[in-house]
Amino acid sequence: MQINGVDIKDTFAEAFGIKVSRLLVTAATKKLALTAATEATGYATSVIGCPAEAGIDVYLPPTETPDGRPGYVIMICNMSKKKLSHELLERIGMGILTAPTTAVFNELEDADEMLNEGFKLKFFGDGYEKEIEIDDRKVFSIPIMSGDFLVESEFGIKDGVAGGNFFVGGDSKMSALLGAQAAVDAISNVPGTITPFPGGVVASGSKVGCNSYKFLDASTNEKMCVSLKDEVAESEIREDINGIYEIVIDGVDEASVKKAMTEGIKAACTIPGVLEINAGNFGGNLGAYKFNLRDLF
Amino acid sequence: MQINGVDIKDTFAEAFGIKVSRLLVTAATKKLALTAATEATGYATSVIGCPAEAGIDVYLPPTETPDGRPGYVIMICNMSKKKLSHELLERIGMGILTAPTTAVFNELEDADEMLNEGFKLKFFGDGYEKEIEIDDRKVFSIPIMSGDFLVESEFGIKDGVAGGNFFVGGDSKMSALLGAQAAVDAISNVPGTITPFPGGVVASGSKVGCNSYKFLDASTNEKMCVSLKDEVAESEIREDINGIYEIVIDGVDEASVKKAMTEGIKAACTIPGVLEINAGNFGGNLGAYKFNLRDLF
Amino acid sequence: MQINGVDIKDTFAEAFGIKVSRLLVTAATKKLALTAATEATGYATSVIGCPAEAGIDVYLPPTETPDGRPGYVIMICNMSKKKLSHELLERIGMGILTAPTTAVFNELEDADEMLNEGFKLKFFGDGYEKEIEIDDRKVFSIPIMSGDFLVESEFGIKDGVAGGNFFVGGDSKMSALLGAQAAVDAISNVPGTITPFPGGVVASGSKVGCNSYKFLDASTNEKMCVSLKDEVAESEIREDINGIYEIVIDGVDEASVKKAMTEGIKAACTIPGVLEINAGNFGGNLGAYKFNLRDLF
Amino acid sequence: MQINGVDIKDTFAEAFGIKVSRLLVTAATKKLALTAATEATGYATSVIGCPAEAGIDVYLPPTETPDGRPGYVIMICNMSKKKLSHELLERIGMGILTAPTTAVFNELEDADEMLNEGFKLKFFGDGYEKEIEIDDRKVFSIPIMSGDFLVESEFGIKDGVAGGNFFVGGDSKMSALLGAQAAVDAISNVPGTITPFPGGVVASGSKVGCNSYKFLDASTNEKMCVSLKDEVAESEIREDINGIYEIVIDGVDEASVKKAMTEGIKAACTIPGVLEINAGNFGGNLGAYKFNLRDLF
Repeated sequence: MQINGVDIKDTFAEAFGIKVSRLLVTAATKKLALTAATEATGYATSVIGCPAEAGIDVYLPPTETPDGRPGYVIMICNMSKKKLSHELLERIGMGILTAPTTAVFNELEDADEMLNEGFKLKFFGDGYEKEIEIDDRKVFSIPIMSGDFLVESEFGIKDGVAGGNFFVGGDSKMSALLGAQAAVDAISNVPGTITPFPGGVVASGSKVGCNSYKFLDASTNEKMCVSLKDEVAESEIREDINGIYEIVIDGVDEASVKKAMTEGIKAACTIPGVLEINAGNFGGNLGAYKFNLRDLF
Repeated sequence: MQINGVDIKDTFAEAFGIKVSRLLVTAATKKLALTAATEATGYATSVIGCPAEAGIDVYLPPTETPDGRPGYVIMICNMSKKKLSHELLERIGMGILTAPTTAVFNELEDADEMLNEGFKLKFFGDGYEKEIEIDDRKVFSIPIMSGDFLVESEFGIKDGVAGGNFFVGGDSKMSALLGAQAAVDAISNVPGTITPFPGGVVASGSKVGCNSYKFLDASTNEKMCVSLKDEVAESEIREDINGIYEIVIDGVDEASVKKAMTEGIKAACTIPGVLEINAGNFGGNLGAYKFNLRDLF
Repeated sequence: MQINGVDIKDTFAEAFGIKVSRLLVTAATKKLALTAATEATGYATSVIGCPAEAGIDVYLPPTETPDGRPGYVIMICNMSKKKLSHELLERIGMGILTAPTTAVFNELEDADEMLNEGFKLKFFGDGYEKEIEIDDRKVFSIPIMSGDFLVESEFGIKDGVAGGNFFVGGDSKMSALLGAQAAVDAISNVPGTITPFPGGVVASGSKVGCNSYKFLDASTNEKMCVSLKDEVAESEIREDINGIYEIVIDGVDEASVKKAMTEGIKAACTIPGVLEINAGNFGGNLGAYKFNLRDLF
Repeated sequence: MQINGVDIKDTFAEAFGIKVSRLLVTAATKKLALTAATEATGYATSVIGCPAEAGIDVYLPPTETPDGRPGYVIMICNMSKKKLSHELLERIGMGILTAPTTAVFNELEDADEMLNEGFKLKFFGDGYEKEIEIDDRKVFSIPIMSGDFLVESEFGIKDGVAGGNFFVGGDSKMSALLGAQAAVDAISNVPGTITPFPGGVVASGSKVGCNSYKFLDASTNEKMCVSLKDEVAESEIREDINGIYEIVIDGVDEASVKKAMTEGIKAACTIPGVLEINAGNFGGNLGAYKFNLRDLF
């Protein structure tokens, strides 16, 4: 199977369950909203080493937000509900409340459960906070030095999907990189999904375990490392491929991840020098979700 | 005392000791270096709730970096050496190693001590990593999917200064905000300093403790909240001031923080509507450093 | 009439006829498309002194473009058809054809007339150009050093509207500026409109003619200059207003300009310190279009 | 000759004389200064079809500008003094005076001649303008709607160099593109130079004249078009090269262009997949300046 001359490998991406939250961060201007959204979703590429997986989902213009101001939807995710609750509290409290002119609203549909992080944050107001209603939502208005910070009382969480993925293989490193960036651009318009790695792109796809150092749970995937192609006998890299980048996707549900993979792969296939789309899996026994690449089209 | 017609209050900023590291993140392009630097320094406004305080220090052009590529110097800080060691490992490993085309070098002069986080990261290479030398530095080259990630073996840490600060008071909220943003622009060119809050600006300066809710260690500083000016009898806000934003600065030493405060305040004073520069302190008994505003000029 | 406590003055904006074109610039990535769109729409704030009025209209994701790549819709306008034809040729030829990985398509609905600028550009191919079809459009593929540049054969023009406008008055200069920026953010999501001034904001609204220097056709509008409020007896600035910025809008038709003004004004009224929305007119005798501010809501 | 394994061809870039101006645009914040600088230097890739060649030179922090605010140095160039005078007047008047919070100063050292464009602009003040002095410069303060616009009275021009250039050849299109972008990043720190094409990169290097259509003065350089490599018998493209982008540099003097070429080429040679650096000339008979690639190192 080929798209625009690019081979779509007959394989599947293996993905996992994760608890996701979805928040809307509004501010006086688009740039101020982006600043807060970026701070709150930083240091959050993978729960392997970060306290959360997080990223910017989509932009909403003033006409589509509860307070008529521009906003960015962000997703914050963790396997554990308790850790997600903590991350929500701190990422809102330290990254958004502290940012100029912001407000935060719940933006998750079909929540499994509500967490009262907004309620917890209201105590920062030291008795001067007020409960108000915006767009039929219960919101706390907390006086801060620069004005009033608005935060919805409760934020929904639900069982979502982590680790949807595909690999972009190119004739050269930079072909693969541009292919991956084009994929990220396309995915950035699919609501309900994020690409949590830096700039949306993963440079260092890994394997489970480590052969040389037994104390490590994860290590470089030598069979897919382009600079080891000639050194590693079991290299699984096609001879004409010299660059590989991975895209990892978290989503609110299977359908969102599927759509993100579809649009991302189509976009990668528009880039000259991209030769093959592959995907990462662990034999199919670890993850709850399988996305066959060829079934996407 | 006035600068450009703006009152400089006769008060001081109270600051604290913190352990700082200073790293250089290079990449193929300036934009790729910025992407990695941003991810690695996110979720790091204040150790009150974040796992670190971090931010981008200065940009270095290709002519000034060990590998001849553009780079951003970042600072990562924590009160505890053990926590800083952990944050260095994870922020490099999860936020920079995972980003396209990056390398990381130690950029701290006069270190008190060296931490071997680069050495720890080399094990990710599963035996395929190599030790090389760049610019007289011991560096590990770790094969990753997209190429080779370079990381210096050791990173210096030293006793630095956290919480250098000043308040920008304006005739209106937006005057104060622009004043604060102008200050951040100026500080961004002072080497050895960061402004770790979102976009460099703090919207929510706090006080120690909480009157209404005893379980809280910090809460809103009601005497400095512009929307409580008429409600709080002890409000310390000048009658003609309607907007206040704070700048918080971390630096490698006292001199750097002093320079950042000086340049930042001068810049804030160029903005129409800025009326007063104030500073935050706790009576002078908590912090190891005091910066008298009027001594800066 | 008030919106969010901001006075909407009982006045109207006076606007003019102009010939507009509307193009879609696609590229390998969103950033590359933006680079070309920015170059092609620069130096184009007002036909008073610029060779065109131009700006970026809206972003289209890969799913909504003829070639499945991300793209920016831009508008290029001039009173004269002949000048517009020249500007189209040169802005496409010098600003987009020269930019990495781009393609250009006609994106104007209901054109009054088609101009064959794409056909004219094909000659740059020196006989190596090819006619192809994309999405039922006649397109020329022109070999250039870096690959093939695609340009649709014909671009539509139609009678549109120039000079839709409103003034944002604030208690301080920076309040008015942020109000104007918030307006631009909102308008940027209204298809069929641009705000051609730098960053979408006009700092220097002018009057027709000049009292002191008769050789000038336009000069500063002293009655609306905030720094002349006390100096000019006939100043029309409200006592509590100390900052004024203007928004100017060009659109494909009256309805688009009306929508842009509506959304822009609503957004400006969310900014603290914004006090009044006003508009610019010349008594109603010069322009073909009048937009009563209060009729917008 | 090789740099980092990349072949430096034994050839030269042929460049031309041009009249250059160099201006400093300051504003309240770095972002506002960039907005004005971008508008004023748009639609200015090449005098072949644009009214000027222009671009952003370097950023100056508040400590290095006459008014203590952040600023961007820009260059505006034209072969003809008369046209340059016109472009200065209009690009300042329409692109900078109209932008929020700006001021403009002369930033050219060793001018051959001074043009009084600031003096001409003062008439916009309709008698309310004032002459002031800043940093020993004669400056006009012109009241505009949003405040006061400052413009230095005179701007220097001098004989500079246009069309310094080199080609980045890569194993794939995207390798060459990233190589070119890395070059632009490096050149952006060389004072006195600009790369006037979109994003600094030329996608469409041309030849003088046209074989198939005699009415054209310039057309595609088919011998250097990667997509015509197999079709054009006289193709001058190395077999393993599949992507070529060009960098064009204008500078205040030969030394600046030389430095920009040197730093740009070194940067391009750090990008994986870049194979060869070439340059464009016309046999050496057209241009006043020759830059031998190998003499740069």
